[in-house]
Amino acid sequence: MAKPPKLSLEEKAAQEFMEKIVSLCKRKGFVFQASEIYGGISNTYDYGPLGVELKRNVKEAWWRRVVTSRADVVGLDSAIIQNPKVWETSGHVGGFSDPMVDCKECKNRFRADHLVGDVCPKCGGELTAAREFNLMFKTQVGAVEGTSSVAYLRPETAQGIFLNYLNVQNSARLKPPFGIAQIGKSFRNEITPGNFVFRTREFEQAEMEFFVPPAEEQEWYAYWKQARFDWYIELGIRPENLRLREHDPDELAHYSTGCVDVEYKYPFGWGELEGIACRTDFDLTRHSEASGSKLMYFDPQTKEKYTPYVIEPAGGIDRMALTFLIDAYEEEQLENDVRVVLKFHPEIAPTTCAVFPLVKKDGMPEKAHEVEALLRRAGYTTFYDEKAAIGRRYRRQDEDGTPFCITVDGDTLTNGTVTIRHRDSMSQEHVPIDALVGRIAQAIADWKRA
Amino acid sequence: MAKPPKLSLEEKAAQEFMEKIVSLCKRKGFVFQASEIYGGISNTYDYGPLGVELKRNVKEAWWRRVVTSRADVVGLDSAIIQNPKVWETSGHVGGFSDPMVDCKECKNRFRADHLVGDVCPKCGGELTAAREFNLMFKTQVGAVEGTSSVAYLRPETAQGIFLNYLNVQNSARLKPPFGIAQIGKSFRNEITPGNFVFRTREFEQAEMEFFVPPAEEQEWYAYWKQARFDWYIELGIRPENLRLREHDPDELAHYSTGCVDVEYKYPFGWGELEGIACRTDFDLTRHSEASGSKLMYFDPQTKEKYTPYVIEPAGGIDRMALTFLIDAYEEEQLENDVRVVLKFHPEIAPTTCAVFPLVKKDGMPEKAHEVEALLRRAGYTTFYDEKAAIGRRYRRQDEDGTPFCITVDGDTLTNGTVTIRHRDSMSQEHVPIDALVGRIAQAIADWKRA
Repeated sequence: MAKPPKLSLEEKAAQEFMEKIVSLCKRKGFVFQASEIYGGISNTYDYGPLGVELKRNVKEAWWRRVVTSRADVVGLDSAIIQNPKVWETSGHVGGFSDPMVDCKECKNRFRADHLVGDVCPKCGGELTAAREFNLMFKTQVGAVEGTSSVAYLRPETAQGIFLNYLNVQNSARLKPPFGIAQIGKSFRNEITPGNFVFRTREFEQAEMEFFVPPAEEQEWYAYWKQARFDWYIELGIRPENLRLREHDPDELAHYSTGCVDVEYKYPFGWGELEGIACRTDFDLTRHSEASGSKLMYFDPQTKEKYTPYVIEPAGGIDRMALTFLIDAYEEEQLENDVRVVLKFHPEIAPTTCAVFPLVKKDGMPEKAHEVEALLRRAGYTTFYDEKAAIGRRYRRQDEDGTPFCITVDGDTLTNGTVTIRHRDSMSQEHVPIDALVGRIAQAIADWKRA
Repeated sequence: MAKPPKLSLEEKAAQEFMEKIVSLCKRKGFVFQASEIYGGISNTYDYGPLGVELKRNVKEAWWRRVVTSRADVVGLDSAIIQNPKVWETSGHVGGFSDPMVDCKECKNRFRADHLVGDVCPKCGGELTAAREFNLMFKTQVGAVEGTSSVAYLRPETAQGIFLNYLNVQNSARLKPPFGIAQIGKSFRNEITPGNFVFRTREFEQAEMEFFVPPAEEQEWYAYWKQARFDWYIELGIRPENLRLREHDPDELAHYSTGCVDVEYKYPFGWGELEGIACRTDFDLTRHSEASGSKLMYFDPQTKEKYTPYVIEPAGGIDRMALTFLIDAYEEEQLENDVRVVLKFHPEIAPTTCAVFPLVKKDGMPEKAHEVEALLRRAGYTTFYDEKAAIGRRYRRQDEDGTPFCITVDGDTLTNGTVTIRHRDSMSQEHVPIDALVGRIAQAIADWKRA
């Protein structure tokens, strides 16, 4: 019988790197295995204290950029369980499936399109023919089984936007071009290997449908491609790890006039980080036909009535958080040791400022708490630490990805200055407390990856 | 046959008020019926552009108060679908159910404990005996039905916190008293009448488990009761509409040493807005026994090992948003008309500042955009409007609950002042553009309900 192939050196290095990331995530409180005390549950993770702040910052940065800083995009938060007709119309009930095969010998199950040969990759046994399995999670709505009706957990947030097209357009008095955006959980019943939080059964999406007059489609497609690519670069992703990959015509859905992936160079190879797709008027037209509601735009000036075309930038928050984390990770060889540091952009770092008293006496802890309160009032997330030697405290914050450590020392008590230690350069500067908030704001505005 | 009772005048007034709220919510884009174009889906709602910002602000205010502004509470974001053993241990598989009866004539189904008489409230027919139905949504994990395993959508976020107790305590180096908080969706398969978003099948919870040395339980219980009550008052809820109701001993779960509801006076009567419960060591002990992991705290100084007691403040974000909205709603009789105004606290208002050019010419729109950009950079959410007469624009913002309208007029172009119009008092003041951001910050700090 054939044996599964051994890992190449490159694959082994990638696996070791991912193991380091997973281990750091658990040790520092970014990501834990879900239900760990009960042996876990496959492809499912919980975010710990640092992870939840990282995710919150990524979501906030996305929302600010895509929604609140723009006059032409508004937000939405639609339910996970919608009327099942939604998924019949969208094509998910009929067509959202993976081809699966079973091994006749060891009984394991695999995705047919992921297999390299035609024998079982585990034991080399003979495989069944491929069968299609729907990826939507099913449930029953109504308290009583049997008589109640089947419903689905949404496999994407986008359909919730199309459903609300008219209500949003009318209540917010919008005219194309305009966008509707939402962030929320989606669910896909996959058995694919996940690469940590890269692919999980439940995941948080950030999607936006940008509705445009059909003639403006390609212009806006070009705009959003560039805008979404630039966002990652501005938030610190190394340009050499990011690329745009246009889909070949035979990769496109029949209704689509263009699709591009923002790809990141993961340890396990280039992978999709976000997609920007031209969906034409496909979704609004299907829902109009199936529901009888005319999901169109009527221009009161030109008296023209038309179904807008759609450009859809769609990414996953979990995948974004993982990408920022992997990209930020560095092991730096110093004189006497190696430091592990997460070089997050200050906007997405879980903690912005750590505040330390140099020693736990002489009124330094009290003063440090005052400084912490000052920074917090200015809107920064802070962390107070008075345990262990100052060098060890710096290292702990390096692993948390905290860009600024502020130390209260003897000088603070005599002349009112504190020391800012910068994470990436490890340089230190003395700043009067009065000027501290302004200096941090300036350092964030000037931030460039060292 | 007996007929269902008619509505009292009070009930009718309450119903009419709720209808007004529902209609405002749809018209202005706070809340829409989910899947409306397909006839809806019971007890399910989507949040529109204003609603999503209201909810975001409520969540942010809760998170800031309960988590990031405190040194003793950290955040978590655990998965919705956990290992099913979690819900066996927590008692939800065995005991989380409603007693239901069916009408033998009209086939409708009701909660037995909500019935007034022993005949059908719809048709007066005979009812079956009550049967227990579990409220958890079931689904199947793994791509293939039959061979795959049953899983549940979480009915509360709290268990996710207990599961991660050790990982969080270790990674964040915490010592009781400390708290772990999370905000996330939960699901309960209820058929109860919902009162709009007061009770929905899927809903967003904000829960915190505060772990304390057992001897400090009652002190911290008193602390959190007051802290949670005060939070609502500080965010503008009218004190006369809010009360604390201690549970009677016979209302308490067998393991609980105290429980209080923060109740709000809804149009349909006093109802629970948030609960603060003493859960003792019940949950950690059960999960320790069932999983074999020792979910305890070891004090390295005293060498003492113990299972912390828990105080749990638990509220629903949807219900909070509804409560802030109902409480903010006023119809004011003015000289010539009635104005509808939502007197939101500025921290939770969907838009902080609306910016208008007095007229659509003379460079006023350009200047107004500059002012808008200035406010946005200062961190305020803004909305630009140049359509309709200025009075009409004010009214639209009153219904959105926007606390400040800033108008650019002829004076702006000559002497650099703008007009701030305050929502609640409708008073106006002229402020130099340089002083605008500071003035808004001051007005928010000084805010009191008019």
